[in-house]
Amino acid sequence: MPTLVLIRHGQSAWNLENRFTGWWDVDLTEQGAAEARAAGELMAAKGLDFDLCFTSLQTRAIKTLHLALEHMGRLWLPVEKHWRLNERHYGGLTGLDKAETAAKHGDEQVHIWRRSFDIPPPAMETGGGFDLTNDRRYKGIAIPKTESLKDTIARVLPYWEERIAPALKAGNRVLISAHGNSLRALVKHLSGISDAEITGLEIPTGQPIVYELDEGLNATDRYYLKDR
Amino acid sequence: MPTLVLIRHGQSAWNLENRFTGWWDVDLTEQGAAEARAAGELMAAKGLDFDLCFTSLQTRAIKTLHLALEHMGRLWLPVEKHWRLNERHYGGLTGLDKAETAAKHGDEQVHIWRRSFDIPPPAMETGGGFDLTNDRRYKGIAIPKTESLKDTIARVLPYWEERIAPALKAGNRVLISAHGNSLRALVKHLSGISDAEITGLEIPTGQPIVYELDEGLNATDRYYLKDR
Repeated sequence: MPTLVLIRHGQSAWNLENRFTGWWDVDLTEQGAAEARAAGELMAAKGLDFDLCFTSLQTRAIKTLHLALEHMGRLWLPVEKHWRLNERHYGGLTGLDKAETAAKHGDEQVHIWRRSFDIPPPAMETGGGFDLTNDRRYKGIAIPKTESLKDTIARVLPYWEERIAPALKAGNRVLISAHGNSLRALVKHLSGISDAEITGLEIPTGQPIVYELDEGLNATDRYYLKDR
Repeated sequence: MPTLVLIRHGQSAWNLENRFTGWWDVDLTEQGAAEARAAGELMAAKGLDFDLCFTSLQTRAIKTLHLALEHMGRLWLPVEKHWRLNERHYGGLTGLDKAETAAKHGDEQVHIWRRSFDIPPPAMETGGGFDLTNDRRYKGIAIPKTESLKDTIARVLPYWEERIAPALKAGNRVLISAHGNSLRALVKHLSGISDAEITGLEIPTGQPIVYELDEGLNATDRYYLKDR
């Protein structure tokens, strides 16, 4: 049966500071790096192994993958990186912490943006400090100005269909290191979670989530590796 | 013009202990990791940038690449890993240090194996402690039993021709992180060094070597980045 494991990057500097991060490229904290190493050790101890890995173009997910693979003795595995696995783009909220956002927009509005399925935050201003238009990593890509969770899902799933699902069907054991919302997109798709429920599903950092799939890639089980 | 930079992995545990390593998967020392970070910082400071990276299936070269890329802010670059960039396979010498090898085979014989172009050391014994037959990273690959430098060159160059040279000709700036002897293969090919001379060419650890190439990939210059 196909093996699929999802892992959200370890704690980042802006997770710690409670800032909206989105596509901004923030590094792991020392605790985040430790979470990634522990995830690798846990996967090795539980006898999990992989043939192919996927991650985003963001340092925190890539480093989480590298640290986990290193602690599994699997740094040599092929890794494919793609912008479609990036975090949700938080538009004009990028860089703001909870207090700043509440002061600027009001608690209720912030709650709506955090918890609604299809309402995006305000668009990022062109030329601001967090504008990635000139970052060559995204050359040729229409960088979002902002995204709802629905928008994020809509750009993650084509990559699932085109690259990840075929790799699983071909017999590859797959590890994906990504972000809270790009992983929500996959969990919603695989576990058939409703629009209303998915916005409340928390994906903890650095905890490998195992999917058992049938040959049609329908989920027969989903669990945290630490619980088995 | 195409850009090509070669880097030999930083100091490994067995570089330090003066052991023949070959295909055995030894980690970097802390000094080796520091060399890799410094190489990334040097490349960034000198304004070098890349589109595509190549490395071997061995941890010390992969980690050197990852650490250098991290310190250039380029962890997101695509990386292709291939066994053809692995270190020369030292056969039955694998794991022996200088003193053990001299005691077992005599100084003169060791000098011949180290410095001859086409005389391989004795073959590795099947089933010994360093036999990689059951390492799944090499599944489907005819793992050498031993290699002369000539043998190493013969298996590195097809990868250069099939993957690296076409990428350079397509306009990609390329960074290769590999090993003393797989890099000798490339330097011999690109700089037209004789069989007799190449065995004496030392490639220092962690020092980016820049090749300036014309459109036909003929070398017009080769230098250590630290010297410019």
